[in-house]
Amino acid sequence: MDICCLDLEGVLIPEMWIKIADQTGIDDLRLTTRDLSSYDELMRHRLSIVERHNLDMKHIRDMLKDVEPLAGALPFLKWLHRHFLVFILSDTFYEFITDMRRKLNDPIILCHHLEISAHDQIKGYRLRQPDSKRVAVHAFQKLGYRVLASGDSYNDVTMLQSADTGVWYCPSEEMRRKQPQFQVATTYQQLADIFRAASRCHPPAFSGPMHARA
Amino acid sequence: MDICCLDLEGVLIPEMWIKIADQTGIDDLRLTTRDLSSYDELMRHRLSIVERHNLDMKHIRDMLKDVEPLAGALPFLKWLHRHFLVFILSDTFYEFITDMRRKLNDPIILCHHLEISAHDQIKGYRLRQPDSKRVAVHAFQKLGYRVLASGDSYNDVTMLQSADTGVWYCPSEEMRRKQPQFQVATTYQQLADIFRAASRCHPPAFSGPMHARA
Repeated sequence: MDICCLDLEGVLIPEMWIKIADQTGIDDLRLTTRDLSSYDELMRHRLSIVERHNLDMKHIRDMLKDVEPLAGALPFLKWLHRHFLVFILSDTFYEFITDMRRKLNDPIILCHHLEISAHDQIKGYRLRQPDSKRVAVHAFQKLGYRVLASGDSYNDVTMLQSADTGVWYCPSEEMRRKQPQFQVATTYQQLADIFRAASRCHPPAFSGPMHARA
Repeated sequence: MDICCLDLEGVLIPEMWIKIADQTGIDDLRLTTRDLSSYDELMRHRLSIVERHNLDMKHIRDMLKDVEPLAGALPFLKWLHRHFLVFILSDTFYEFITDMRRKLNDPIILCHHLEISAHDQIKGYRLRQPDSKRVAVHAFQKLGYRVLASGDSYNDVTMLQSADTGVWYCPSEEMRRKQPQFQVATTYQQLADIFRAASRCHPPAFSGPMHARA
């Protein structure tokens, strides 16, 4: 079997910080990994806003409770799990996606942890390791697997580069222009077709509902 | 989150070669990794019998089609997937477990491939890598995870040794005596309780149906 590595936010679920921006009205929280290439800079920016506005984990969990997977993500993931070994490689935090992981049927997600105080305040974050998506792809290759990968943002570039096949999923025009060497999918159907063609394990075709990002 | 690594046959599903022995009446196929410490010797023994008796993959797939997960395995796996990142590390072959993987709800299984001819005959086997269970545990630890592991046989020993917590699940008396340093579980309830106590992620209790191997 082959391994598929997928980014989470923007590929299977909405951007969680944008949802928090929507709910709180704090426009400064709209920056994502699609806008800023330094994840550390982005997180320091976010956490300073969280502190200034006194947002604790209880608030944030409540705001994220009703967020649903993107339209079509569940049948696509079901097909993918049947025919590949699926790993979701994300720079989000386990504390943010407890409910969402359940909605996705408890897939393997490799991401990071927040540091939460006894009073539910976000005190900081612990990146699991530097360049964690690339390191994970290399680890799977060293276990003897062929790795196909897809993402949409700056923090996916080294994952796509190190995978045996890397695919943009609904990238911004800027990402696409900066890294034009990867194939581009804008629907789950296209992504499934590219994965099928790249796999040596002959998975049957996916025929899910069409989905393009709004 | 923490990672759980589980052996497959004897822990979640019956021994597949024993099922083939039952169906064919070939008693020589009853040896398993619980009996022989050299996996290569065991596989050469099995494949020579398969060839002598003209068993092809179609026969074998038909024989294995009705094999079901062990009683209680599905609720245990469901609980485990919710609270851990679950990897099934097995020395079986993807070609043997296509139907069984589906019955287990398509979990991540790292195992090996058989070499199958165009006429559906088993020509040989390709081990993914030497000591593959231990290598996988190390890879997960290098990705920054704590690894809990459980198995029942010779080929699980290095996995249990390299895990942060290793647990025997229904081992033979011989295995238990030879490697007495590991805790022992004989039901999924006990295994879940040991994993809970060893995890730093505070999973809630499992309360599934009791199960001891017949």
